[in-house]
Order: sequence, then structure tokens, then C-alpha cells
Amino acid sequence: MPKFTKIDAHWMSMALKLAQKGRFSTMPNPNVGCVIVDKNNQLIGQGFHQKAGQAHAEVNALINAGFIPHQNPANEPTVHQDKPITHGATAYVTLEPCSHTGKTPPCALALIEAQIARVVIASIDKNPQVMNNGIAQLKEAGIQVDTGLMESEAQKLNTAFNFRMTHSLPYVIVKLATSIDGKTALKNGESKWITGPEARANVQVERASSCAILSGADTVIADDPKLNVRDAALPVFESVLFKLRAAQPVRVIIDGQNRLHNNYQIFQDEHEVIVFNAKHNFQLTAKNIEQIQVPLVVSTEHQSAEARQYLDLHAIMLVLAERQINRVWTETGAALSGALLKSNLVNELIIYQAPILLGSDARGAVNIGQLTSIEQAVKTEFKEVTQVGKDLKLRLSIKS
Amino acid sequence: MPKFTKIDAHWMSMALKLAQKGRFSTMPNPNVGCVIVDKNNQLIGQGFHQKAGQAHAEVNALINAGFIPHQNPANEPTVHQDKPITHGATAYVTLEPCSHTGKTPPCALALIEAQIARVVIASIDKNPQVMNNGIAQLKEAGIQVDTGLMESEAQKLNTAFNFRMTHSLPYVIVKLATSIDGKTALKNGESKWITGPEARANVQVERASSCAILSGADTVIADDPKLNVRDAALPVFESVLFKLRAAQPVRVIIDGQNRLHNNYQIFQDEHEVIVFNAKHNFQLTAKNIEQIQVPLVVSTEHQSAEARQYLDLHAIMLVLAERQINRVWTETGAALSGALLKSNLVNELIIYQAPILLGSDARGAVNIGQLTSIEQAVKTEFKEVTQVGKDLKLRLSIKS
Repeated sequence: MPKFTKIDAHWMSMALKLAQKGRFSTMPNPNVGCVIVDKNNQLIGQGFHQKAGQAHAEVNALINAGFIPHQNPANEPTVHQDKPITHGATAYVTLEPCSHTGKTPPCALALIEAQIARVVIASIDKNPQVMNNGIAQLKEAGIQVDTGLMESEAQKLNTAFNFRMTHSLPYVIVKLATSIDGKTALKNGESKWITGPEARANVQVERASSCAILSGADTVIADDPKLNVRDAALPVFESVLFKLRAAQPVRVIIDGQNRLHNNYQIFQDEHEVIVFNAKHNFQLTAKNIEQIQVPLVVSTEHQSAEARQYLDLHAIMLVLAERQINRVWTETGAALSGALLKSNLVNELIIYQAPILLGSDARGAVNIGQLTSIEQAVKTEFKEVTQVGKDLKLRLSIKS
Repeated sequence: MPKFTKIDAHWMSMALKLAQKGRFSTMPNPNVGCVIVDKNNQLIGQGFHQKAGQAHAEVNALINAGFIPHQNPANEPTVHQDKPITHGATAYVTLEPCSHTGKTPPCALALIEAQIARVVIASIDKNPQVMNNGIAQLKEAGIQVDTGLMESEAQKLNTAFNFRMTHSLPYVIVKLATSIDGKTALKNGESKWITGPEARANVQVERASSCAILSGADTVIADDPKLNVRDAALPVFESVLFKLRAAQPVRVIIDGQNRLHNNYQIFQDEHEVIVFNAKHNFQLTAKNIEQIQVPLVVSTEHQSAEARQYLDLHAIMLVLAERQINRVWTETGAALSGALLKSNLVNELIIYQAPILLGSDARGAVNIGQLTSIEQAVKTEFKEVTQVGKDLKLRLSIKS
């Protein structure tokens, strides 16, 4: 384990902050930041990865330092530099530099070309195409490589990406908006508005951070939501970062019984909607729709009619992972939320809890069938509690 | 508004800490602390009120300083002191010194006798027998009186006492222990244990802070609880402070239909139980029981059979306030919790929230009837959120 200095920590925390600027836009790629510092410990370059297909953080930082890598993304003519400004410098990178040619040339090569003397890396790339190869390539070129500085902070930047890389499943978050006694709507269905405007604005930020927004036909039919990111509802800085993003999150709708038709709002814009069903729905002809069939499965646990048969949720998630969906943000009703939880496909719960009581007669948040022992409860762990306006935002991880 | 120095704030915060030591034991009296400092700003005496009928904070601080007040509580012979050690000193008191002879002689007189030069007071006594009279008495004797230093902190010490003094009603707290989706038990009634051992230990501290523990016949019949403070379950320091207390909190049970009999655990010990009912229950003959009759009222709002007729909860609270009950800690089922909330008799909710989901089929926390608009919700405000073991403890004030 190498010893890191306070100076190393200073530069790496700057690189971590840079990486976060890509939080709405790098998907399916991870967030990465890079800082380059010369021998006199002066900052000479900084950059972050903005968007898939565009330059990686290291290349952006090298360009920012005035060094144009041989295979620069814009294919500009290469300027041969005998002893570039980056000669002997240290690069701080939040993620292991890539070693393969994907949409852009490998970053490890660019760092070698720039005659970087030392590379400090926070976390290893979980992408099997990269893992440890980037480091090996740098070391072969005689570069000192020190890894593990602020590793857990760096991993948190890419929780969803790392989960997909290691599990071939997306990282699924179920969002609930409830009263303090766990109710999402009155018996008559009224649910506007349980939580306050600050909580609803925060939902926009969570949507913006996600690759896909998942819901069910029930919710589409009941509320006819747009399920998009309303740019104007984002805070100013977030709004700027969101503009780096290529497209709105993909909307994913589960409709086992082909109850949807073209007239809902989600089908009225140009943004992508994936509808999962058991058979092709010939009523759905809007241009932004892709339909994907997965098998119906019969639930032995659920007693209620609505949940007797449902689409194979695990199959749906495998398809989404294949589509390079890292983070799935779920806003749906008690039946689908409950089914996802029962299927062990949920990684996190985010609950916006309003300081009101709606009483036992109001509608519950998740249908998970009738438990006969407390031991059967869905077990979670509080990870973060913050006040958002007058409401609480609870972030809980699901314990498996 | 007088200017207070940092030194004043230092001594007053010490007095506030002293006052807190009486938090389990001064009822029905308020918590009070006192610090006496000589002309050279040296601490010469400190004290707090421990128990009703015993010396007040000021007298304890004077005795601690070596000055024995003329009418000392132990009736020891008075030592005439021409120029006592307390001559010219400053007294910091968290509550206005009393001016009336209750179970002990007035503290204002003792401070005058001790030739105190200045009295700094945090908050005014809301007791109409005292309010502003103590200050007037001190000023008449030529003592400089400065009030309002750390007033809000001092008032927080005595929230329940102040509420009773100003409203002639006890300060009522409803405790709930729920899953993160607001459930208190499975459909089959199982509820052991939703929250963890730390949360249950914290309930003991809350019980210890209360004058009365309120419950309903339903809960007694279903769970046969003791509803007492288990000294051994308190943290070490709290356990020491609880020993200052004269008696266990009074248990108050609401039994509108005379369903109780002598065999429940609450009737097996020597501690007081008040049973409220509509007619005397001749089955209840245990020696620790007092029965009090209040009228039955018919609810127009509740539809369910169980809530059609219930005891007049407001009348019950008036009786408890007359009995000098400041703080009522309520541990009961959804029906009585809901009825108290609907009657606007609840000041605070304390919810221990366990990080588990029990699902929509499990039992809800409060029955408040079927709402037809979100506007009819019981409105509260988050006041404090703390993690207690693996659970959250939410403190919410009810908005009226």
C-alpha cells in the first residue's frame, strides 16, 4: 500500500469534484475526473469525462494543459513535442485509465505520450475490458502508478456503473413519496400533493442522474405522467450539467396486458420509450416506442388478482443491462414496486416522507403480500437522511 | 433588553445543564438549575431542583455555597451572618425564582437574605402564582435583575410544564413504532420486534421523562404490558437520575367498555393506575387502581364500529391536568392514537421507524377515518431526526 501525502489528497479531491460534473451525462460510461500537476506541484491541467463518445477525463486534462495527444479526439494534426509541458508531471485520476480503443483511443497511451512520470488512481475500473490492464500498460512504460487513494469516494461516484459491471444487472432504485404513516394516496386515489415542491424538484435531479425511468401501465393510465426531466425544475448548476447530456433518460414501461395506447403523454414527444409486454401491442405505433417481449411468469406468492401473472422482471432487467442502462429510477405504484422488491431486483429505496398523517384507510406504499412473520419483512438499512423543504428524504439500501 | 456577556452565557449554560439533572424527578414542578458566582467571577455554589417538596435550585445552590437560608428546608437553626460569602454575588437561575410559599419557602427571599447583588434569569415562570412576582420581589430589595438570557433553551427544559400552565391541559406525546412503510404489526397481529433494542431502550428514557403513561384497554388486553420504567434498561447516568424520582409514572388506561379485570400485569404491582371509564368497573378491585368516570361521546366522523362511541378524551385530559400531570406519554393502538389526534389533544408525535417494509397488508399506525382530501391530513412538522441503533427516531410537532 503506497503512502499518499496530504498534497496527493488535495489534488485527488479536486479530481473527484471534477468527475461529479459528469453525473448527468456520461452514461453508460462512468464519471471520471483528472488533474495534472507539474514537478513544482503547480496545477497545469484539469478535465472530466462529459459524454460517451467524447474525450475521456485524462485527454481533456492533457488538452487543458496544452498537450495535444497523438490520437486526439478531433483528429487534429499532431504536434510533435520533444519535452512537452506535461513531462515529469503527476496525473490524478479518479478511475483507472482505459487501455482499449472504444469510441476513443486508450487514455493510458495518451498519458505515456505526454511523458507523465506518476499516475495516482483512486479506483480500479470494474469494466472487465479495462480492469488492471490500464495500470499494467502504464507500468510497462516506466510510469509510477499508485492506486487506492480515496477509493471509496471514487467508487461512490459510479455505484450504478460498478454494479452493472459486476452483476450484469442495472442498479435499481425505487422511489416512494409517502406520508409519515407510509401512505401514498387517499383511498379515493388523491395523491397531489403529499410531498412539497422541494421534494418534487429533488425528484427531477434523481431522474436526471438516471439512465432510465421505470414505471408500470397502471401508473401511466392513472396519472398520464411525462416521466421526463423538466430542465426548468433543476437547480441552476444542475441545469447546466444536464445540458451536457445527449438525451432524456429512457422511459421504460411495463405493460403485461397491453393496456396502453398512443394517446398517453409519454408517447407524444421524440424521446425514447421502451414498452415491455408479453405480446406485441399493435395499438402502440408512436415513433418513439420500442416494444420488447419477455415471458409472463406466474406468482405463487401473491394472492391478489392483479399480481397473479406478471412479466418476468429479471428478464426485463437483463435486457436493460444489455442496453448499458446503469441506473434505473422507478416511479410506480404499490404493485410493481412490491413485485420488484419481492424479486430481489431493487438496490435502493428513496423515500420522500411528508410530515402528515393520512391514516390507516389510505393506500399503502408497497404490496408484498401478506406476511406471517416479521422475519419475512424486506430488510433495509438507513444510508442517508436529509431534510428537503418540509419533507425528509430517506435513502435506504436493500439488504439481501 | 440587557446586554449579557460571554461570561454570563458560560454560567447560564452551566445552570441549564444542572437543571437537566432533574428531568426525571421534579414533576409536577419544572426543572431548574442555579449557579452562584462571587464578585471575582469564581463559582461558589451550584444546585438544581430534584424533587417536588424538596429544596428549590436556588436554595440548593446557596447551601452549596455555605449560606444556610433563614427558612431552610431541614429547619436547621439559622446562623446569622452579617456579611455572608454570597454577599454581592451573582446568581444565574434558569427560571424566575418563586415568590410564594408552596411546599418550601420562597426562593426570592432566600436570595435577598443571602445579599445577592444580581440575579440573571433565563425564563419567566409560567405558573400564574409566580409569573413576574419573583422578579418584582427581587427588584424591590434592590437586586439587579436581568432576564432573557438563553430563554429558548430554558423554555425547552419545561415544554410540558409550560404547556400545562398556559393551557390547563397536559402535553401529550403519541409514540409509534413502525416499519418504514408505516406499519405497526402484521395482519396477524405480530409486532415483536419491529424496532431494535436501542429504540426500545430509548422508549424507557421517554417513559422516565413523563408524568403519565397512557394506553387503552385494547393494548392492555392484546399485549398485557407493564407500562413502567425498567430501571435496568436505562443508561447508567439516566438510571442514577431516575432514582431521584419519587414514583413510577402514573399509568392511565382508557377503558370505555369495562373490559379490564384484575389479572393484567399493570394491576399486580404497587404503582398507581388510573382507569378512566363510563361506569365504575366492579371487577377492578386491585389496590393500586383509581377509577374515574367521564362521559361517553358519540363520534360523527368515525364510521367504524370500534370508534362509534368513546370516552370524552378532552375531559380525561382536563382531569390529568388537574392532577398536575405535565407530560403524557402515549403507547397505544391505532384507534386511540387516531382518536387523540382527531381530537386535537396531541402536541407531539415520536415515531421510531425501523428500516423494514411490511407491505400494504400489514396494520396501519393511526385510524383517523377515511379522508376525502389531502387537506384533511393531520399536519405535523419535523423537529428532530436521530438514528437510534438501526432505527430512526422522528420527533414531530403537531400543527393545529
